[in-house]
Amino acid sequence: MAKHWSLPAVDALRSDGLRIADLDTSGTPGFDGAKAEGLACLAERATVLSGLQEKLYANGRSGDKRSVLLVLQGMDTAGKGGIVRHVIGSVDPQGVDHAAFGVPTEKEKHHHFLWRIRKELPGGGQLGVFDRSHYEDVLVVRVHDLVPPEVWQPRYDEINAFEKELVDEGTTLVKVAMFVSLDEQKKRLSERLERPDKYWKFNPSDIDERAFWPAYQQAYQVMLDRTSTEYAPWHVIPADRKWFARLAVTELLIAALETLELDWPAATFDIEEQKRRLAEV
Amino acid sequence: MAKHWSLPAVDALRSDGLRIADLDTSGTPGFDGAKAEGLACLAERATVLSGLQEKLYANGRSGDKRSVLLVLQGMDTAGKGGIVRHVIGSVDPQGVDHAAFGVPTEKEKHHHFLWRIRKELPGGGQLGVFDRSHYEDVLVVRVHDLVPPEVWQPRYDEINAFEKELVDEGTTLVKVAMFVSLDEQKKRLSERLERPDKYWKFNPSDIDERAFWPAYQQAYQVMLDRTSTEYAPWHVIPADRKWFARLAVTELLIAALETLELDWPAATFDIEEQKRRLAEV
Repeated sequence: MAKHWSLPAVDALRSDGLRIADLDTSGTPGFDGAKAEGLACLAERATVLSGLQEKLYANGRSGDKRSVLLVLQGMDTAGKGGIVRHVIGSVDPQGVDHAAFGVPTEKEKHHHFLWRIRKELPGGGQLGVFDRSHYEDVLVVRVHDLVPPEVWQPRYDEINAFEKELVDEGTTLVKVAMFVSLDEQKKRLSERLERPDKYWKFNPSDIDERAFWPAYQQAYQVMLDRTSTEYAPWHVIPADRKWFARLAVTELLIAALETLELDWPAATFDIEEQKRRLAEV
Repeated sequence: MAKHWSLPAVDALRSDGLRIADLDTSGTPGFDGAKAEGLACLAERATVLSGLQEKLYANGRSGDKRSVLLVLQGMDTAGKGGIVRHVIGSVDPQGVDHAAFGVPTEKEKHHHFLWRIRKELPGGGQLGVFDRSHYEDVLVVRVHDLVPPEVWQPRYDEINAFEKELVDEGTTLVKVAMFVSLDEQKKRLSERLERPDKYWKFNPSDIDERAFWPAYQQAYQVMLDRTSTEYAPWHVIPADRKWFARLAVTELLIAALETLELDWPAATFDIEEQKRRLAEV
């Protein structure tokens, strides 16, 4: 087990039976250390993650169709971007397939909600990252009645079927829902209004959305209850402490990569023969 | 000027009039330090690059259409992948658009050679990275007669027109041609045959290609002569020393970003009003 963890992160953070209303967003479930230990672990484990990702990439280049897909969900300011910058930032960009899903374009709206998602799926050997995802179609869409219930209700089952298909095709899903408290969000939004280098991250609609907090909490709860499956479980990350959220996602990715039992691809050529050939030219 | 540089990298590495045949691939043009200083500069300047890239990304998110596109060309083992891993790896993956161009697919072959390139152009605010590029269509294609001369000959002009269009639309091109010596390539290929964690990077055809070295040198020379323009100049990087190549590309990217004179985007809302609104919810 990784240092300072009393329980593997995959178990400590698993969403099963969890009520969001009861979640301590400043907690560090499974991790016994404080911030200093957390940051030390993060630096150490980033190297492990990077090594595993290189093996995934190497295997992909050698024809392995398997991939890993990190799905990030969370309210504004929950720290999704920070995960990409600080966790995904520690691995080789050659093996990263990053996609951020915003408000659907007119063209996307004319397609099934999974259409734009499928286009961004990671290829073999890639570490895919979805900053928001198909889950927006049962979150913001549900909260703001963007489509009627008879359209979004069946989406939970559609999503489960879709993810089953991905898993069967060799994609390991790492689904992460990040939660900050309403107070912590206020603090983070305030900071964006205080610092000129943060204005660009602020949108007045972020404040409007705060009025819908309870509706979002409910939509997230239903999402966890209905789409956390054996083959693609949700993990819930208390995200008031940025260092913990980053460490937690690092551990979840390491665990996912470890289950693939990756080794360096074997040579597909006669090594000695190639050495002789190279010696001649 | 950056520390230890006697001449800005953009000037020291500019391809104008350069004969590849005369290039010292183990040189460090413009840089007066040795490896230790180089590595120290690299660490320091990576932070500068990362800060500038964040501003580019912030402006893109705020509607700025400008982008930067790094075009990497070089023979096998020249270190293109290392540039992506170690230079691009120091910036936020959210703002990176990476594309590697291999042998064209059947579908791609049925299109104009720039078709697949256009599809991967970076959007506003993005740092695009092309690992190989449209230049393969006047390099490997020319060396191996994959299409007749009457097809590849006009491509130099087509490429210049294409790049002019990109520049006019707000893309700053950073074109980098990396050169190792034939001996250094042998050393690097040997290493790939010695280390099981490197087998996957080796392909027997890499050895076949060595026989075409002079033809490639010639094709690269014509490429530099015909497609280094005022608006999209080539830079030539001696790449036997990996630390120098990485530092050089870091400097070229910093210089490109600095010409954009980026500032943090101004607030598009009334800051005080938003503070009042936030205080209420």
